[in-house]
Amino acid sequence: MSENIYDDREFFAAYEQLGRSVHGLAAAPEWSSVRSLLPDLVGAHVVDLGSGFGAFARWAADAGATDVLALDSSARMVERAQAITDDPAVTYQLIDLNELDLPQSEFDLAYSALVVHYLADLEGFARAVHDALRPGGRLVLTTEHPMFMASTLADFVDVDGVRTWPVDHYADEGERTTNWLVPGVRKWFRSAGTTVNALIDAGFVIRRLIDWTPSTEQVAADPELAKERDRPAFLLIAADRPLS
Amino acid sequence: MSENIYDDREFFAAYEQLGRSVHGLAAAPEWSSVRSLLPDLVGAHVVDLGSGFGAFARWAADAGATDVLALDSSARMVERAQAITDDPAVTYQLIDLNELDLPQSEFDLAYSALVVHYLADLEGFARAVHDALRPGGRLVLTTEHPMFMASTLADFVDVDGVRTWPVDHYADEGERTTNWLVPGVRKWFRSAGTTVNALIDAGFVIRRLIDWTPSTEQVAADPELAKERDRPAFLLIAADRPLS
Repeated sequence: MSENIYDDREFFAAYEQLGRSVHGLAAAPEWSSVRSLLPDLVGAHVVDLGSGFGAFARWAADAGATDVLALDSSARMVERAQAITDDPAVTYQLIDLNELDLPQSEFDLAYSALVVHYLADLEGFARAVHDALRPGGRLVLTTEHPMFMASTLADFVDVDGVRTWPVDHYADEGERTTNWLVPGVRKWFRSAGTTVNALIDAGFVIRRLIDWTPSTEQVAADPELAKERDRPAFLLIAADRPLS
Repeated sequence: MSENIYDDREFFAAYEQLGRSVHGLAAAPEWSSVRSLLPDLVGAHVVDLGSGFGAFARWAADAGATDVLALDSSARMVERAQAITDDPAVTYQLIDLNELDLPQSEFDLAYSALVVHYLADLEGFARAVHDALRPGGRLVLTTEHPMFMASTLADFVDVDGVRTWPVDHYADEGERTTNWLVPGVRKWFRSAGTTVNALIDAGFVIRRLIDWTPSTEQVAADPELAKERDRPAFLLIAADRPLS
């Protein structure tokens, strides 16, 4: 199994203090946009690829999904999620997301939040997820926005009185090392086009692309979010396995 | 007819001095990427939406297209293009690109280079172009990249020794006034997602999305292009009208 930063004790301790870890989906400002991409889940079979603490898996079961297979490649994550889940529709499983082995044509929804930027082989991931969906099934995928990732400085700077997000080296795709929660976190940087094209090449039809920024209403409710309107932090994609 | 910056004498005089105006497609560094999105043009009916000096229209005729309808909303552009074109397959027409009126299911290729960021109604444009393509026909569209447009400073800055492209106000879509060739050029800023979703909503299937940056080979041949690898200047999209 690949090395997993979420199994690092120091990283995990910091991660579990994040708002979205403590308070779940409601604390993720992009959640209402993500939710708009989801199909009706009543009676649905769902696979969650990178299930973390299980917040989405439990939400999907509450929304009517009859089977939720929640996969994560961090043993700590799976252990914690199992301990706080009391819903027979949800099954957790420790797997290597870099080497997916899923049942074929099984799921109505594949969900993967903020995971693919840790994966070296997006093409293989996309093919495996496509084949695991039933024809007509949907993938909802979120990733760190490439505009966010393609920043060596990785923080806003003031230039002549304008708060700006400094982008550089956008053309240099591949492995990047960043400091997030702990130093030296390894991620895989891809342009927006590269991510979208990997899904298309796997057989998906793109249904929605959202460069996520908070609404003015969200900023009014939480002024800390104002700077998030200067550049998108997340890229949200809905894509379907076609019926034929 | 809408006001057209290309009919401004000062703007036009500056525009016709640009490398891509003087030397045509070969002087546009994104051309080889754009070309990779084009279908075989032998026997094809082509519409060029925003045909400028006619470089693409003439290229398409040379590549075998039997009919090339080249549309532009600048009278100066159309006049100049007609004067330098000697190919009976190419027909120029002055029209308002904001109010397209095209034949239905007629074209194998619709091409629109660096035009839609001047249009207020992308949704209407997308619907009209979709309906003008025969089923199975392709749209190849290029636009200024939103990462490029969403920059108040609109130039690279050095931050702690790193050459960066400063992005701000990405969430504020709509009309923006920039200084390019002359002061006060009006453009319409849209996120990448908004542009892609307008095509999807018009009935297109997205085939390719390219955040264009020059290759390392291009930079080796022209070191001036190096900074263009720090952020994409153009967004290139290939989309098809489905067969059914």
